[in-house]
Amino acid sequence: MTGTRPSPADFAPPPVAADLPRWADTDAAARPTRLGRIRARLAADGLDAYFGVRPESSRYLTGFALRDGEDRVSGQSGRFIVSGDEVVVLADTRYTIQATREARGARVEAVTYDLATRWAELAASVGARKVAVEAAFVSHALWRGLEAAAPDVELVPVDGWVEADRATKELAEVERIRAACAVGDRALAALLPEIRVGITEAELAWRLEVLIRTGGAEGLAFDVACLAGPAAALPHGSPGARPVLDGEVILFDFGARVDGYRSDMTRTLFVGEPRQRDLDLHALVADAQRAAIAVVEASAVTGGPAPSGRAVDAAARDVIAAAGMGDRFGHGTGHGIGLATHEAPSLSRVAPEVPLPSPTVFSVEPGVYVEGETGIRIEDLVLFDVGARRAERLTRFPSGVVVV
Amino acid sequence: MTGTRPSPADFAPPPVAADLPRWADTDAAARPTRLGRIRARLAADGLDAYFGVRPESSRYLTGFALRDGEDRVSGQSGRFIVSGDEVVVLADTRYTIQATREARGARVEAVTYDLATRWAELAASVGARKVAVEAAFVSHALWRGLEAAAPDVELVPVDGWVEADRATKELAEVERIRAACAVGDRALAALLPEIRVGITEAELAWRLEVLIRTGGAEGLAFDVACLAGPAAALPHGSPGARPVLDGEVILFDFGARVDGYRSDMTRTLFVGEPRQRDLDLHALVADAQRAAIAVVEASAVTGGPAPSGRAVDAAARDVIAAAGMGDRFGHGTGHGIGLATHEAPSLSRVAPEVPLPSPTVFSVEPGVYVEGETGIRIEDLVLFDVGARRAERLTRFPSGVVVV
Repeated sequence: MTGTRPSPADFAPPPVAADLPRWADTDAAARPTRLGRIRARLAADGLDAYFGVRPESSRYLTGFALRDGEDRVSGQSGRFIVSGDEVVVLADTRYTIQATREARGARVEAVTYDLATRWAELAASVGARKVAVEAAFVSHALWRGLEAAAPDVELVPVDGWVEADRATKELAEVERIRAACAVGDRALAALLPEIRVGITEAELAWRLEVLIRTGGAEGLAFDVACLAGPAAALPHGSPGARPVLDGEVILFDFGARVDGYRSDMTRTLFVGEPRQRDLDLHALVADAQRAAIAVVEASAVTGGPAPSGRAVDAAARDVIAAAGMGDRFGHGTGHGIGLATHEAPSLSRVAPEVPLPSPTVFSVEPGVYVEGETGIRIEDLVLFDVGARRAERLTRFPSGVVVV
Repeated sequence: MTGTRPSPADFAPPPVAADLPRWADTDAAARPTRLGRIRARLAADGLDAYFGVRPESSRYLTGFALRDGEDRVSGQSGRFIVSGDEVVVLADTRYTIQATREARGARVEAVTYDLATRWAELAASVGARKVAVEAAFVSHALWRGLEAAAPDVELVPVDGWVEADRATKELAEVERIRAACAVGDRALAALLPEIRVGITEAELAWRLEVLIRTGGAEGLAFDVACLAGPAAALPHGSPGARPVLDGEVILFDFGARVDGYRSDMTRTLFVGEPRQRDLDLHALVADAQRAAIAVVEASAVTGGPAPSGRAVDAAARDVIAAAGMGDRFGHGTGHGIGLATHEAPSLSRVAPEVPLPSPTVFSVEPGVYVEGETGIRIEDLVLFDVGARRAERLTRFPSGVVVV
């Protein structure tokens, strides 16, 4: 009944100091290839330059890395232009030194307030008349402002170029996601002895964060969710002052960040004597997760055609629907992960019906939520690697019934 | 020489549990007035509805509060429509329960994936033919998608409606900013005994975060910056493995979050025997800050016309320029703060030449940065309240020379 009680030593050790400069060098060595893919797209579409705005894209393509959430206050800093033979990184005075240091080989341009006033000149400086712009990440106001400022520079909306490239992971990227997963595994194992009746969700969330942040992560991937009993029915609820009660489930959804790369794991644990209803739901969700992973595993191991994200979602969803719980699993089955917590590929009812990329890493996280009563979700990260003929769980904390 | 060495007990105590429900009630009571201002703008411009997308606006106007950064993964959830007589909050299945609970009196609409497919119906449900949309916060792709999905619904770009309202603070908003400031004051005071030669920037940043997070804050306002010696010349650098050396300055820029409201403070402390150059720069920056605060103080105390953010910036900038250091103070002098760390009003060279609102809270944070050598910044939050005839520093940690 009590299942396995893992301990931190069961999992891989944290990264060491020498890993960081090694990863920086690996990234720097990979950047010409990454830029080459953007340049090939530009050439194929007859465009002169790509204007990038996402912080993840900037880190991936130029090396200039804003801190998590810093793009809210960084103005134009971190935005960049890739032309056929140049990379231009925008930075205001707060960021010029950092940009010059991190974006090796790029030209750093001081753009302090209004990008539109500099746009014509910047486009001309890379010889661009047709510029690819990520329309989903540029505001309508900025788009209009750039159009008005430089009527001769055509803005061409493009969608997900860098995101599509980032979905396929390099070896050193998988290594960092794997390291982030191990930090999370160890942290949750170390937390187990602290989970007791009466402790609050907020206290447990904070303790888990401390264990992650002092256990080898540079930060969290996202705020820790810790939801007890009926609160577990809120798939994205916030931990509160609510104490954990005997016989309840407690759901942890959390992730670590190692050199920019993220993990994401959900475990629903049992406090005290498990209720049969919760055990049944847990078994159902575990079956659904197994069914989804079996689909990708079969493809990887046989080297057969890769399933679509929609097909993997359907495999999990069918199991839950067959138990009459279809309307209690409202969200998608999973999402890619890397420099962003949620990225391509998507595993959901509306995911594109195209084969998953490989190698790639995504979450598989079915759940069942009974409003006002209970919620169960099990989430693991899976490496799908057809070349290596494997589908591997990167999160190693046992996913069976764990009673605390 | 050593100046004051404050201790945590010098500052106001943390908020108590009863404050949270009280603030929730105060916010709920204020929402009709807040919504009334948006509706008055709609009526004045002949528009039928306002489509809001910023998480801060949603919390302010509807009560539905996403966690910090959660909008990255929440899809359409938290976006909302205000019409003349209704508030509609969008939420996918992960958020419906929370939205129903928090957005009292609003209609919660399940919008799972593509907003465009629901747009015509949603607009019709509130009788809207002309919808105000924050063009600076809606992507160009979404704008185009909505236009295509409902050609009969006119999208009218508007700019900063809610931001302008939020710049003027209610009493209970100032109360929370003040509480967040006190949490920060106490945390830095508690950290002083831990600052010693050899400890790293990253260790100090983490310890300061722990003191904030366990000292009455629900979270940080933003990641702690802790930069020693030459690193202090990077106005937005990240704390690293660099140890603090004798005779260096150490710059802390940090903030706490109390019930969604934020603080922001910078102190540049001296480790060991201060260098004369650093003392001189510190005195210069303190003079510049005093000059800026004197401008707002004069207006508040006399009840005279409020200065513009540009005039306050100029007051600080002139002092630094007169010392021949004008090119070493690149950023603006300050920014409003509240539900967002950076919000209106702006205090900078390009801030609008209109009077500051009142009551309002903003930072005053001049700095001087000598690349490769040192950096000094002093930042306080100031409450500017003409009605109460005062300009008050909400951050109370001494801003003079503190040697550790």
